[in-house]
Amino acid sequence: MIPILDLSTAQKTVLRRAPLNLWDFPPSVVEKTRALFGEGVTPPQAVARILASIREEGDAALRRWSALLDRTVPKEFRLSRDAMRKAWEMLPTDLASALRLAAQRIRAFHERQPLPSWEHRDENGVLGQRLVPIERVGVYVPGGSAPLPSSLLMSVIPAQVAGVETIVVCTPPEPHPTILAAAYLCEVEHFYQVGGAQAIGAMAFGTESVPKVDKIVGAGNLWVTLAKQQVFGVVGLDGLAGPTETMIIADGSANPDWVAADLLAQAEHDPLASAILLTPDSALAARVQEQIAHQIERLSRAEIISQSLASRSGIVLTPDLETAADLANEYAPEHLCLSVADPEALLPRLRHSGGIFIGEHSFEVLGDYVAGPSHVMPTGGSARFNSPLNALDFVKVVSLIGLTPQAGEILSRPAAVIAQAETLTAHAAAAEKRFSG
Amino acid sequence: MIPILDLSTAQKTVLRRAPLNLWDFPPSVVEKTRALFGEGVTPPQAVARILASIREEGDAALRRWSALLDRTVPKEFRLSRDAMRKAWEMLPTDLASALRLAAQRIRAFHERQPLPSWEHRDENGVLGQRLVPIERVGVYVPGGSAPLPSSLLMSVIPAQVAGVETIVVCTPPEPHPTILAAAYLCEVEHFYQVGGAQAIGAMAFGTESVPKVDKIVGAGNLWVTLAKQQVFGVVGLDGLAGPTETMIIADGSANPDWVAADLLAQAEHDPLASAILLTPDSALAARVQEQIAHQIERLSRAEIISQSLASRSGIVLTPDLETAADLANEYAPEHLCLSVADPEALLPRLRHSGGIFIGEHSFEVLGDYVAGPSHVMPTGGSARFNSPLNALDFVKVVSLIGLTPQAGEILSRPAAVIAQAETLTAHAAAAEKRFSG
Repeated sequence: MIPILDLSTAQKTVLRRAPLNLWDFPPSVVEKTRALFGEGVTPPQAVARILASIREEGDAALRRWSALLDRTVPKEFRLSRDAMRKAWEMLPTDLASALRLAAQRIRAFHERQPLPSWEHRDENGVLGQRLVPIERVGVYVPGGSAPLPSSLLMSVIPAQVAGVETIVVCTPPEPHPTILAAAYLCEVEHFYQVGGAQAIGAMAFGTESVPKVDKIVGAGNLWVTLAKQQVFGVVGLDGLAGPTETMIIADGSANPDWVAADLLAQAEHDPLASAILLTPDSALAARVQEQIAHQIERLSRAEIISQSLASRSGIVLTPDLETAADLANEYAPEHLCLSVADPEALLPRLRHSGGIFIGEHSFEVLGDYVAGPSHVMPTGGSARFNSPLNALDFVKVVSLIGLTPQAGEILSRPAAVIAQAETLTAHAAAAEKRFSG
Repeated sequence: MIPILDLSTAQKTVLRRAPLNLWDFPPSVVEKTRALFGEGVTPPQAVARILASIREEGDAALRRWSALLDRTVPKEFRLSRDAMRKAWEMLPTDLASALRLAAQRIRAFHERQPLPSWEHRDENGVLGQRLVPIERVGVYVPGGSAPLPSSLLMSVIPAQVAGVETIVVCTPPEPHPTILAAAYLCEVEHFYQVGGAQAIGAMAFGTESVPKVDKIVGAGNLWVTLAKQQVFGVVGLDGLAGPTETMIIADGSANPDWVAADLLAQAEHDPLASAILLTPDSALAARVQEQIAHQIERLSRAEIISQSLASRSGIVLTPDLETAADLANEYAPEHLCLSVADPEALLPRLRHSGGIFIGEHSFEVLGDYVAGPSHVMPTGGSARFNSPLNALDFVKVVSLIGLTPQAGEILSRPAAVIAQAETLTAHAAAAEKRFSG
């Protein structure tokens, strides 16, 4: 059951953000690590061991970890376009159409995103920034409790729009056919059935089978997250993903039936998922609570939902909508949904979230599949500094500096002065040569 | 002395990129860690210990580490605007003017950078991306063997241009007056004399004295880099910085005196710095080598330079300029300088570097100080996926999804179909309510 909380209780419980903690782990994870890796080995140490072995031994290590951790060793890590095509052809027509529509809308959305290279030319020459696609990108598609073809589309398509040449997809062995079909739909060439920390290691360092990439994106479980943290700097990363979370701000105009359904949808992802409703309307709060109790009975993932609702979720009574908006900024949720009569009035106040879903007709499930923006969004409060996956994640800036001889000479004098102050005399000498000789 | 290398030797030595390695450390670092932290403690473990203690104990831990590692405990960690103003007023006039010019040009350059929020409205509603400034940013300014006021300007000003509200600067205790003066010049309010891994911990977690930030930028030594890696995800990061590097592509038109001076300037940063010349012209190679031998004698940092030149640098003979360009793409240098007769002809071929310095009048030292683009650029080959620090580093994207009731209803059907395929029945139920009820 989802609790109704007053503000001060909520701030001590469901609204409280602790910094990402990759140092302390639940006993079950510690126990499993010990069973697989031996006494006294922590999860980060286990991951470090996996990564080091892949760096040194390549495929041989991949096969070993796949046998130990996935309990299967694929004959080939790479899956062919032919296998993808077959999976696509087996899809029910309505699913094929729905995925095709999703892909089109994701592509159209990201094609609207400006990637503005620029040059400024004047009498002193040219200065500018060139936005260049990253050459090789790795996309991790989680396996887990539900097959997520949508995650593949939401990561691969923005990379394609940005102009990435080589896109490598990794997902745990024996992927669900819908994931293969989604890969076929968006013309993935490099598809590997390698999962977990070993997939991150394979893409970061490269093996005989799996090409090395420049940047890795996509969410995964704890092992994937630990591995991503350890290869940060070896490759670029989109960020570290934690459990998903939704915050809905609603007033008396909201449909309690829909609000309840949206909270339940969020909660079914993960026992650690958060589904939080902020509302000043206690009558709405009560009706949503009732609706949740009623609707949950018919849902197949009721057990996951119950855990999420009881421990990480809540209906929080706020003095007014403005307070709710301020709480949202502080919490910086992955998804922020405005089920209020006048969402436009709240918009200017909202700064920190992955996405803003404006009005109850723009509910989160649309964003998960077909609205257009990537559903790979920053969790755990990282929306304070991170973005939903977007085309800018797949380019980098190259600064251009092209000064005329005259401008170069003039600027060499102040450059030499600063270099001297920094005691970098070879810098000063290089500058002085430009105006003294 | 800088060696002249044939291509195949160079590819096995100075041009060889190994992945960033934060697992193996030189014996001196291991030894120092052991002396300070005890038997069997690795540098990453020492850093983890520093970070954990700051997370738990705040200022008390900061004071302890400052005493142990910096051998001084400042009375106050925070330095006042008044202290900055005094440092500014003590500057020689020419240095004050040079820094003011640098600040102006850095600001003007980044103000030209588009930060394009956008909205697309049609009959289905609105979709878009809002670029929102990050609220609180930490800038690390290294102490080290030379005081670098320029690094403060190059990090703080792009953040200001992007609209960051709170900028926190940390630098080791008893900072050089020119760093304080630079902070005064660009109106820094939050300036702390805290260095090393403990500064990164203080900004990532917050202490009684030092405010918590959302993102940390700026280069530092190995301890800073290890600490940044460990707080990745707790805060955003610009990247991990390694030793600096310059690659010059030159042909027979280049002035060997200038090329030599530019290589020497690069080499004086660090014994691990790389200064690499690629040229098809063996006569130029010989003259540059001579010039280096000649010029080095008058330089104050000759010992650092000699180490860099002997171990990490070289003059590489390439078959032609196109090969040189391809080698540059593969190496992805921090700085790429084109001392060739027709630099514009090479430009389209160049994809991976932090900055491109077009023509020998646009030499790297200008970029270090006064050209305009930030000199904080990606090292170690990370230019394949990372950018020079720029205004985009200080904003994040918020996705906007505002569909009309009609569009929401229409899109709910394919969303429900995909949700069912993903076995997420609560997602499907939330979508079905929008078109069935």
